[in-house]
Amino acid sequence: MPRLKKRRSKKAGLPPGTLIHIGEKKAETPRITLIDYDEKQFQEKEVEAIEECFAFKDKHTVTWINIDGIHEVEVIEKLGKCFDVHPLTLEDILNTEQRPKAEDFDDYVFIVSKMLYYDEKKDSVRSEQVSIVLGSSFLISFQEAEGDVFNSVRERLRKGKGRIRKAGSDYLAYALIDAIIDHYFIILENFGEKIESLEDQLVTAPTQETLQSIHNMKREMIFFRKQVWPLRELIAGLTKGETPLINESTHVYLRDVYDHTIQIIDTIESFRDILSGMLDIYLSYISNKMNEVMKVLTIIATIFIPLTFVAGIYGMNFKFMPELEWHWGYFLALFVMGVIAVFMVFYFRKKEWL
Amino acid sequence: MPRLKKRRSKKAGLPPGTLIHIGEKKAETPRITLIDYDEKQFQEKEVEAIEECFAFKDKHTVTWINIDGIHEVEVIEKLGKCFDVHPLTLEDILNTEQRPKAEDFDDYVFIVSKMLYYDEKKDSVRSEQVSIVLGSSFLISFQEAEGDVFNSVRERLRKGKGRIRKAGSDYLAYALIDAIIDHYFIILENFGEKIESLEDQLVTAPTQETLQSIHNMKREMIFFRKQVWPLRELIAGLTKGETPLINESTHVYLRDVYDHTIQIIDTIESFRDILSGMLDIYLSYISNKMNEVMKVLTIIATIFIPLTFVAGIYGMNFKFMPELEWHWGYFLALFVMGVIAVFMVFYFRKKEWL
Amino acid sequence: MPRLKKRRSKKAGLPPGTLIHIGEKKAETPRITLIDYDEKQFQEKEVEAIEECFAFKDKHTVTWINIDGIHEVEVIEKLGKCFDVHPLTLEDILNTEQRPKAEDFDDYVFIVSKMLYYDEKKDSVRSEQVSIVLGSSFLISFQEAEGDVFNSVRERLRKGKGRIRKAGSDYLAYALIDAIIDHYFIILENFGEKIESLEDQLVTAPTQETLQSIHNMKREMIFFRKQVWPLRELIAGLTKGETPLINESTHVYLRDVYDHTIQIIDTIESFRDILSGMLDIYLSYISNKMNEVMKVLTIIATIFIPLTFVAGIYGMNFKFMPELEWHWGYFLALFVMGVIAVFMVFYFRKKEWL
Amino acid sequence: MPRLKKRRSKKAGLPPGTLIHIGEKKAETPRITLIDYDEKQFQEKEVEAIEECFAFKDKHTVTWINIDGIHEVEVIEKLGKCFDVHPLTLEDILNTEQRPKAEDFDDYVFIVSKMLYYDEKKDSVRSEQVSIVLGSSFLISFQEAEGDVFNSVRERLRKGKGRIRKAGSDYLAYALIDAIIDHYFIILENFGEKIESLEDQLVTAPTQETLQSIHNMKREMIFFRKQVWPLRELIAGLTKGETPLINESTHVYLRDVYDHTIQIIDTIESFRDILSGMLDIYLSYISNKMNEVMKVLTIIATIFIPLTFVAGIYGMNFKFMPELEWHWGYFLALFVMGVIAVFMVFYFRKKEWL
Amino acid sequence: MPRLKKRRSKKAGLPPGTLIHIGEKKAETPRITLIDYDEKQFQEKEVEAIEECFAFKDKHTVTWINIDGIHEVEVIEKLGKCFDVHPLTLEDILNTEQRPKAEDFDDYVFIVSKMLYYDEKKDSVRSEQVSIVLGSSFLISFQEAEGDVFNSVRERLRKGKGRIRKAGSDYLAYALIDAIIDHYFIILENFGEKIESLEDQLVTAPTQETLQSIHNMKREMIFFRKQVWPLRELIAGLTKGETPLINESTHVYLRDVYDHTIQIIDTIESFRDILSGMLDIYLSYISNKMNEVMKVLTIIATIFIPLTFVAGIYGMNFKFMPELEWHWGYFLALFVMGVIAVFMVFYFRKKEWL
Repeated sequence: MPRLKKRRSKKAGLPPGTLIHIGEKKAETPRITLIDYDEKQFQEKEVEAIEECFAFKDKHTVTWINIDGIHEVEVIEKLGKCFDVHPLTLEDILNTEQRPKAEDFDDYVFIVSKMLYYDEKKDSVRSEQVSIVLGSSFLISFQEAEGDVFNSVRERLRKGKGRIRKAGSDYLAYALIDAIIDHYFIILENFGEKIESLEDQLVTAPTQETLQSIHNMKREMIFFRKQVWPLRELIAGLTKGETPLINESTHVYLRDVYDHTIQIIDTIESFRDILSGMLDIYLSYISNKMNEVMKVLTIIATIFIPLTFVAGIYGMNFKFMPELEWHWGYFLALFVMGVIAVFMVFYFRKKEWL
Repeated sequence: MPRLKKRRSKKAGLPPGTLIHIGEKKAETPRITLIDYDEKQFQEKEVEAIEECFAFKDKHTVTWINIDGIHEVEVIEKLGKCFDVHPLTLEDILNTEQRPKAEDFDDYVFIVSKMLYYDEKKDSVRSEQVSIVLGSSFLISFQEAEGDVFNSVRERLRKGKGRIRKAGSDYLAYALIDAIIDHYFIILENFGEKIESLEDQLVTAPTQETLQSIHNMKREMIFFRKQVWPLRELIAGLTKGETPLINESTHVYLRDVYDHTIQIIDTIESFRDILSGMLDIYLSYISNKMNEVMKVLTIIATIFIPLTFVAGIYGMNFKFMPELEWHWGYFLALFVMGVIAVFMVFYFRKKEWL
Repeated sequence: MPRLKKRRSKKAGLPPGTLIHIGEKKAETPRITLIDYDEKQFQEKEVEAIEECFAFKDKHTVTWINIDGIHEVEVIEKLGKCFDVHPLTLEDILNTEQRPKAEDFDDYVFIVSKMLYYDEKKDSVRSEQVSIVLGSSFLISFQEAEGDVFNSVRERLRKGKGRIRKAGSDYLAYALIDAIIDHYFIILENFGEKIESLEDQLVTAPTQETLQSIHNMKREMIFFRKQVWPLRELIAGLTKGETPLINESTHVYLRDVYDHTIQIIDTIESFRDILSGMLDIYLSYISNKMNEVMKVLTIIATIFIPLTFVAGIYGMNFKFMPELEWHWGYFLALFVMGVIAVFMVFYFRKKEWL
Repeated sequence: MPRLKKRRSKKAGLPPGTLIHIGEKKAETPRITLIDYDEKQFQEKEVEAIEECFAFKDKHTVTWINIDGIHEVEVIEKLGKCFDVHPLTLEDILNTEQRPKAEDFDDYVFIVSKMLYYDEKKDSVRSEQVSIVLGSSFLISFQEAEGDVFNSVRERLRKGKGRIRKAGSDYLAYALIDAIIDHYFIILENFGEKIESLEDQLVTAPTQETLQSIHNMKREMIFFRKQVWPLRELIAGLTKGETPLINESTHVYLRDVYDHTIQIIDTIESFRDILSGMLDIYLSYISNKMNEVMKVLTIIATIFIPLTFVAGIYGMNFKFMPELEWHWGYFLALFVMGVIAVFMVFYFRKKEWL
Repeated sequence: MPRLKKRRSKKAGLPPGTLIHIGEKKAETPRITLIDYDEKQFQEKEVEAIEECFAFKDKHTVTWINIDGIHEVEVIEKLGKCFDVHPLTLEDILNTEQRPKAEDFDDYVFIVSKMLYYDEKKDSVRSEQVSIVLGSSFLISFQEAEGDVFNSVRERLRKGKGRIRKAGSDYLAYALIDAIIDHYFIILENFGEKIESLEDQLVTAPTQETLQSIHNMKREMIFFRKQVWPLRELIAGLTKGETPLINESTHVYLRDVYDHTIQIIDTIESFRDILSGMLDIYLSYISNKMNEVMKVLTIIATIFIPLTFVAGIYGMNFKFMPELEWHWGYFLALFVMGVIAVFMVFYFRKKEWL
């Protein structure tokens, strides 16, 4: 659970806009790729020094600068200065514990969201922060590490398929957000499958581990929900916002993403409800089992305790015990015991314990 | 529980508007029926090739094209092109995991909702997506499989009964939504009956299966609610919306459907409350039963354990045990045991355990 | 619980405005009474044929037509036609499962609400639907069966007491709603008394039946709340609504009714909270009792089991057992047992179990 | 719990504005005091007949009429007529079960709130209704019984301290509400102390009574909250309201009272949360205790049961039992028993039960 | 838990604006420091008599007066008079139980918030009230005791780093609030670490103390949340407020603080969810353990009770018991016992208890 241990505190007391990277260092050196395109042309290159990008700033083509690895503060700083990015924005980019949000800074819109990966080995969801600075003719995206979620967008840009090459940087921003959210569905499907297998376990033979898994799933849901919930607001903000950076024609696409977000939130809530129900089932399974154990003990004990008592009586060594002298005494005693046992069994039958 | 396993993920990474059918294939070949009518005339035919419909696009009569089976992407695509339907709408029609919603695309209103069927065999609710594209003089409806819910509307159109032939396509849309929601009441009645029979079981002889059924019902309710809740918003949106495609005179009918939706939601919430109460009753039944079992064990054990101890004492083989020599020793011992037993019974009476 | 079994489904598929009576038939023949009044004159008569009422439609006096028993569809239909009532309204009047609501149809306001009766025998709340069609100079009220809740209003009209004869039909509508809601307080008082008696039982000697009663009360509360909650909205709607049918001067009275509704809702919520608390008390009572039972068993068992063991040892028949030969062996054994018992009691004292 | 038994029902069916006193009669004869003041002069007198007050109605000085005891309907009625108070207001004054509210009747503002007292003996909160009719130059306050909460306000008026003599009747109304709400803090402190002492009990030695006290506190909280919650709305209404009777300069004071109300609500909610947590602690304490009891029983029983069995074997009277003849048989048997016991203790140690 | 025992009641009945210090006296003598600066100059001095500050009131430079220790009422009073602070504001400054809030008094904005410290020894969060009076060219801050949270701001002022010396008093206010909220993150990290260590305990060996700790944490969360929740509103109010005292250019910084607040609230809510989950895990751990204990008891008892009974039978002293005479009787008896034991073990295996 390294999620709870974040060292945001090292920033306490520093002036706002101080650029400090907060979070794990997930990549060796930042990798910068630049894609420049409009309807007719397309250019893609890997950038060595960040300064190479500056020339593209005032071109009318759409320029997409993608930076994988944000721990080198100077790179971010230089880029920020060139593209007139507010120091607070840069600070937010470097701090990997942002809550997803969209902020309108007149010249650009700043979008923070979370890429989520399902880590099979640790059986938990990892999150990586993706920041997007969307200007009128450029878009800069910051990832913590290299990821492949944006590859499909790159592919569409290369092939010039669909609307993407004709539209502006706002449509590119939409495409990136859409790629991120599409990825959430995959994780939800993983969860769905796990929930089903847990349900099967619950019906057949639940163990302590089943319980542990249910609790883990619940926790993952809390985490997931915390990441997705603000997205709703974020996208609603972009759709309704008055920023001229996002064209009217892109609104219908954002509305589509908005629907997906609602759908994800709905599914998470359903999962939470189902998991809560599973906990209830587990608990009543346990208490039923205990009940059954108790019944067995009670039946055995209450049948044999009186019998043992009778045996105990005739094991006493009193001088004068008339029954002991009787010829059929022993068999009578056995008969009495039998009667007691039968009566007990009959009583339990009536109580529906047997 | 195949509901959790939906393969929406196969769309991740594709550009928006890519037409891929997501969901089960529920029909063999799509079946297309066309109804064209106004106050004076009525025409109904089964269509072989989708192109036959295109001629009706600009007629002033109301044209209702109904498509059962949406897995043949090309059919949807051609139709979409002819009637100027936005690619995102077509994508939504093909994706059977939409959340119910209404979207206003100037030229048409796009409505997605869910038809629900109660599957007696599996004892669960199945859902089927119904999409409606409502234009000024046409309405196209898409179903996943052939269903009979719309038959009553067709019948009314054929007979020219009521307001339906005089009104426009918006009234037809209302009639279809009304038919869908009316069907929900039937399912709710099914649920109501099952809840009652479960309540009877609870009072008489609840078993582990009763518990399982209650949990199943709760789950069905989560599912049902997830389908119905967005409908409220949907219809409120249509009523308050400023789209000129829906006439003022239809608003009063939509308000009526809105009331029905609220009523359904209310009933679902009541059912949920009742089911929760039933779970509580079951749990306290179990713990009461356990309590009773424990009491029987305790009473039997605490009466006989001391008696057995007394018997044990006089079963000892010490050389010198004066009581053993007494002539009435045995009967005295029995008497002492009797006194202990009576005292115990008296004690339990006082404690109100007997 | 006949409340869950309503046959609304028989309407599924019919066109809107189809007049079908849904609900129990609670009266033999509909009974129609007509009251016509203004400040100076007053006229009251029982009506045989509904057509007698039509003459009063355009009179400037206030006309109140009350119909007890709504199962004769033609009566409702004729009345509806004469007073220009929308078919959807007539449909709602006949369907006794409406949610309380107020709808503004320009020419009239349509109000549906529920009369609630407490059925002592079945120990549950019965509801009856009351619909009101409020026009500018007439008011038509529909009840499922004859009831006496409106008698006080009739009495006030006859005697000409208070504001009622001077005011218009809107004030009459207020008076009827007020009479209905006043009746709710009586039911709440019934509930209050039952809750108190349950609380007394809980403190003294709760039984399984106490639990059952608490659950029943909770269910009644769910039902009650479902009936009252929409009333709040209804009356707020009338107060804030812009319908010219309700005079400014009546607003202050409606505000008063609104306060009553809020008060009822508050009380219901308090009752629910109290009932939940009572369930918790019951459950902890049960677990306390079980704890006590367990303690008694444990104390008895753990004192006597070791003693019985000691007795068992000296009951063995080994040839060579030196203690058996000792003269004081028996008394020594008894002494040892006594010591063990005293130690055990001492131990339980320390544990605060005794 | 006399709170649940209120006889509001005796009003059902009466016309609105009928003046009937609902509630306990808490004072013998109503006591009327009149205070008339402005910045320069001050006059205070006890009034015998209510008519003495009427002369002050049109004076420009501020007149405060306070009535302790509202069961004499005629007094209220006469006063109401003189000061043009609406019959519904008078009805509300007489009905002591009002929900706190503020209503604007053009000529005056009507405010109902609750004075709360902590009744040490019954260990519960008593409430008394305080109604205020605030006119442009007069204020009439109605209390159910004589109370001392307003004494501090009277004192300030007499001494002419602070802003109070310079300001108008609206400031006086504020001062009275402020006095009432200040009193709530005292009760909350009482509750706070009781909660702390309960917490101490919980940690050391919780009993069934501790549980009962926690439930009582929860109930008191439900009651308290019901009284305070509407106050928030009430005061917000006065602050935002457009009534000219409340001067701009008083708004800042009302905002202050509003803050206090929020603070009280916050504290109540915290108390509720804490009490819920305490219930959880109690329940887990009980189940822990039970667990411990069970362990002791299990350990004693599982150690001695096998030993007793061994003793039982050698207590059998078979003719041919070789072990019995062995010289060291007895000691061997004891040794075997010792080994079994040691093994059992070892086993429990491993299970961490000892 | 001294938090619940606050003596706010001593103010009940006093006129508003009466200056009384409510809260602990946390400092010996109030310490007053004054910082006066603009872009070019910087002056810092410790003030002996409060009157020294008055000269700075009308200077155009920004003046920051910080007062540590608010129990000397006269100091606050004099300062208030000089800077035209409303008596209600002064009252709020002295009352250390304010809810965080921001109030706009035309000439100045009054902000109350809470500084939180984590007290390692008592393992709980302490709070201290910080009040800020923000004027156009001055800012007065009041703390209950000397603290070091503002030191970083002082340092930035001294060094002239960042925007702070160029901006006005509103930016200074922002910097102070930011410093307070940054400190919250440190506390949250503390909590995060404790939660993780509790989780480790839960998985390995939970004890009664673990439970106690979880409940303590929950309580701390209730307290923390109560302090932070109103901050959200406070800062939103400052951002959206129309007060001219806060420049447009500061809004972006306030928005940043707002984001931090939301993030803190989110984290608190997650922590609460996680703690609730931990309680559930603990409870099911206990009930599992109990189940296990019961099983061991049941298995041992049900195996040996029948065996002991058999031994008891052959321990009876009847004259005529044929089995006793058999040569192999003893071994047969042992064999029968063995068979019973094996059967029992087999039975438990089948039940999956072994």
